[in-house]
Amino acid sequence: MVKDLMAKLDRAFNPRSVAVVGDSTKLDYMWLNAMRTFQGEVYSVQVNPKDIPHIQKLGFDNYHSLLDIPGPVDYVVLSVPRKVVPQIISDCIQKGVAGVSLFTSGFAETHTEDGLEYQQRLTAMAEGAGLVLIGPNCMGIYNRRLGLRQNPEQPVGEGGEVGFISQSGTHAVLLSLAGAYHGIKLSKSVSYGNAIVLDSPDYLEYMAQDPETRVIAMYIEGVKEGRRFFEVLRRAARAKPVVVWKGGRTEDGFRATSSHTAALAQSPQVWHALVKQCGAIQVDSFDSLLDTLKVLLHCKPTTGHNLALVAMSGGQSVAIADAFTEAGFRAPPLTETSYRELASFFDIIGGSYQNPFDIAWNVPSVEGVMKLIGIVDRDENIDGIVLEIGVFFLERRWREKWADNIAGLIDALARFKAQSRKPLLVVVVPTNREEAALELMARLGDKGIPGLPSFERGAVALRRVVDYYRARHALGQ
Amino acid sequence: MVKDLMAKLDRAFNPRSVAVVGDSTKLDYMWLNAMRTFQGEVYSVQVNPKDIPHIQKLGFDNYHSLLDIPGPVDYVVLSVPRKVVPQIISDCIQKGVAGVSLFTSGFAETHTEDGLEYQQRLTAMAEGAGLVLIGPNCMGIYNRRLGLRQNPEQPVGEGGEVGFISQSGTHAVLLSLAGAYHGIKLSKSVSYGNAIVLDSPDYLEYMAQDPETRVIAMYIEGVKEGRRFFEVLRRAARAKPVVVWKGGRTEDGFRATSSHTAALAQSPQVWHALVKQCGAIQVDSFDSLLDTLKVLLHCKPTTGHNLALVAMSGGQSVAIADAFTEAGFRAPPLTETSYRELASFFDIIGGSYQNPFDIAWNVPSVEGVMKLIGIVDRDENIDGIVLEIGVFFLERRWREKWADNIAGLIDALARFKAQSRKPLLVVVVPTNREEAALELMARLGDKGIPGLPSFERGAVALRRVVDYYRARHALGQ
Repeated sequence: MVKDLMAKLDRAFNPRSVAVVGDSTKLDYMWLNAMRTFQGEVYSVQVNPKDIPHIQKLGFDNYHSLLDIPGPVDYVVLSVPRKVVPQIISDCIQKGVAGVSLFTSGFAETHTEDGLEYQQRLTAMAEGAGLVLIGPNCMGIYNRRLGLRQNPEQPVGEGGEVGFISQSGTHAVLLSLAGAYHGIKLSKSVSYGNAIVLDSPDYLEYMAQDPETRVIAMYIEGVKEGRRFFEVLRRAARAKPVVVWKGGRTEDGFRATSSHTAALAQSPQVWHALVKQCGAIQVDSFDSLLDTLKVLLHCKPTTGHNLALVAMSGGQSVAIADAFTEAGFRAPPLTETSYRELASFFDIIGGSYQNPFDIAWNVPSVEGVMKLIGIVDRDENIDGIVLEIGVFFLERRWREKWADNIAGLIDALARFKAQSRKPLLVVVVPTNREEAALELMARLGDKGIPGLPSFERGAVALRRVVDYYRARHALGQ
Repeated sequence: MVKDLMAKLDRAFNPRSVAVVGDSTKLDYMWLNAMRTFQGEVYSVQVNPKDIPHIQKLGFDNYHSLLDIPGPVDYVVLSVPRKVVPQIISDCIQKGVAGVSLFTSGFAETHTEDGLEYQQRLTAMAEGAGLVLIGPNCMGIYNRRLGLRQNPEQPVGEGGEVGFISQSGTHAVLLSLAGAYHGIKLSKSVSYGNAIVLDSPDYLEYMAQDPETRVIAMYIEGVKEGRRFFEVLRRAARAKPVVVWKGGRTEDGFRATSSHTAALAQSPQVWHALVKQCGAIQVDSFDSLLDTLKVLLHCKPTTGHNLALVAMSGGQSVAIADAFTEAGFRAPPLTETSYRELASFFDIIGGSYQNPFDIAWNVPSVEGVMKLIGIVDRDENIDGIVLEIGVFFLERRWREKWADNIAGLIDALARFKAQSRKPLLVVVVPTNREEAALELMARLGDKGIPGLPSFERGAVALRRVVDYYRARHALGQ
């Protein structure tokens, strides 16, 4: 990307002033409401006399034209009928706006002559003027720290660590919202739709150099310049972990991307091989993206496959072992030292400490659980630890002490994580305590402990991340 | 199984009187509390003077010996120290008890000489007397309709349709509890641990002929008589769908089953092939068992692969198509008639009806959603329908009408299901509305509509069930 465009994109991601053009009752003033938390200036542009009183009531200054706004405008969200778009884009260029996010849809993705013509005209205008045009058919930029949002419900405040580049607006918004349950905060995100001027490689270049962004996530339906994409991806993946979710891997999925963002076809096999060569991590669904980010952010890195698997009952000790072994891990025997220590207090009637563990009636206290975790942490046969927290099981064991004990356990796990070099993964098994499990997972996430909702999801996510560290290690990185 | 044992097993599954031997403060009187809902007589047997006042306070008659109980006893739960077990078993035989569930553990699964000796002695006693001995190291029988439980929190009342045969007590209890969120009610279940006298083929024979049980689920760690198991499985699978979850498929998982229920090794490949030959459905985790049961119980049968995939946004239309196509389904073009009808009201700016559907701003009412579903229901290119309910998305569309509309939608889907011959699957995408999604899934389940928590889980479960119907169809069944 040319230097000038990169500077403008940086201005758009970190604006000091924002204008929303065309917000309306139909949209329930979604865009202006989304900007309520923005820390800089917010202007509204609307000419419909029916909408203006509502906008003023919401507390925003309204102008009839972008050109009437007194100060400079860094970033514009454009939500006007398709036929008006060229005029407003022309105003944006004249006003010296850095970036425009075009929410309006009805372009190439409709596969109509009209739609294509409009799209070509916009492309020419923006490229001619060096305007950072995001979209069309997108939700634009989210900057958590600045309170710049794509939706009125997105969280703001402390900056996050994940930069999300998403061709889909839904996925962009949903990841920022779902993250609250999982201890995942976004630094910035961009939903970029049809990608007529800037495309994924541009946003990837930006996120790769963005100091706030520690991990990059991508949802991609298609890329226009394949060679450039893979070059940029290779460089970005050297700088920080990049997780790529490709939408439209199947014939029917591709047809959907074509209606959605007019994406171009790519062979799934070739795509898969190239992304792998670049050193990026591949996922295939929203949940797998969430899980992988959680493990990347919150687990200590390891290239080892030998895990201590700690379950709370016999049936779960089998399930945890099958899930992690099928994902390529092992639950090896512990050292003699560990077994001696365990034998001194662990009652094997109804339980087992052979690895996988079946805690059963042992370790009924937080200290007991942590003692066991301490033993496997010191065990040289073990590279990482997976702990089941069975909500139903512990509620019965701990009874009236449940709330205190669970708070104590979370704190103890956080202290453990701070001093241990081994990855710790918690699997929160919900069963009939779904609400309690959700709350627990969110509380674990707040303390930087990854809580996964099933053995299988935990195993697959950990595997992806360990494979990533192994590949980097093999390259001497 | 010999006829006499089958009759005794039936008496144990449908007892008129129950005795709990050895419940204690240590267990928080779990067993007596579990029997509070039992509709017949419940007796306690306990000799410890510290426990007896608590038992009486709970409202149960306590006896010092099983032989002191005045009336007959059909089913006994035994929770006494290992060394006392032979004496009580001898009492059970003398009393003419039909079935005994032995909660006590510490037998072959400990891999100690002591444990093995005890187990051999019990086996000889029970077999000699023709006693239905369930376990040891198990939770015994659950009969929802009779209020006979394995745990004080299990639901009781109206009989369910799923009979669950589980070598693990945890999985037995968890499925009965989790079912409440998913519209799955168990008819009966048995947790049978080390299976020293009766084994899975015995319980399978029973469930196959049980008129209450419409679908059989199994969690198996190992079987003692492989040939008999597969013979019985083949016959059972002809009578009703049988879903089999094998625990200990991996080396480490097997080691866990060995510590758990002293299970014997089986080659996973051979097992897989034989279960398939028998016409049973195989799953590999608790969640996949849950999902598969839900689809079996609540979806109309089909052998077709062509689905209408209805998502609420562009990004989700791609995700739904990838998930279902990767599971072997197709989202084919609709008939010209359907397209004409859709074109008359569906705005393609921001949406698409090509299949997969991207509803976007279309069909904002319940009637609108049902109109669309009606069109694909009549479409001869379509074998089944998958509808995304995006909680976050619809809350924003429906705003203050959310509660009324969602209630109306559930009712309308239930009416649709009553008259349609095509399977309907709902995927409830939770995101930041996890609690609302859980509630919605449970409400759908109550109306017999399968709600799955992700496209991927829905796709895999539907695939398993369609494969099952295809296999039956191929056999002319």
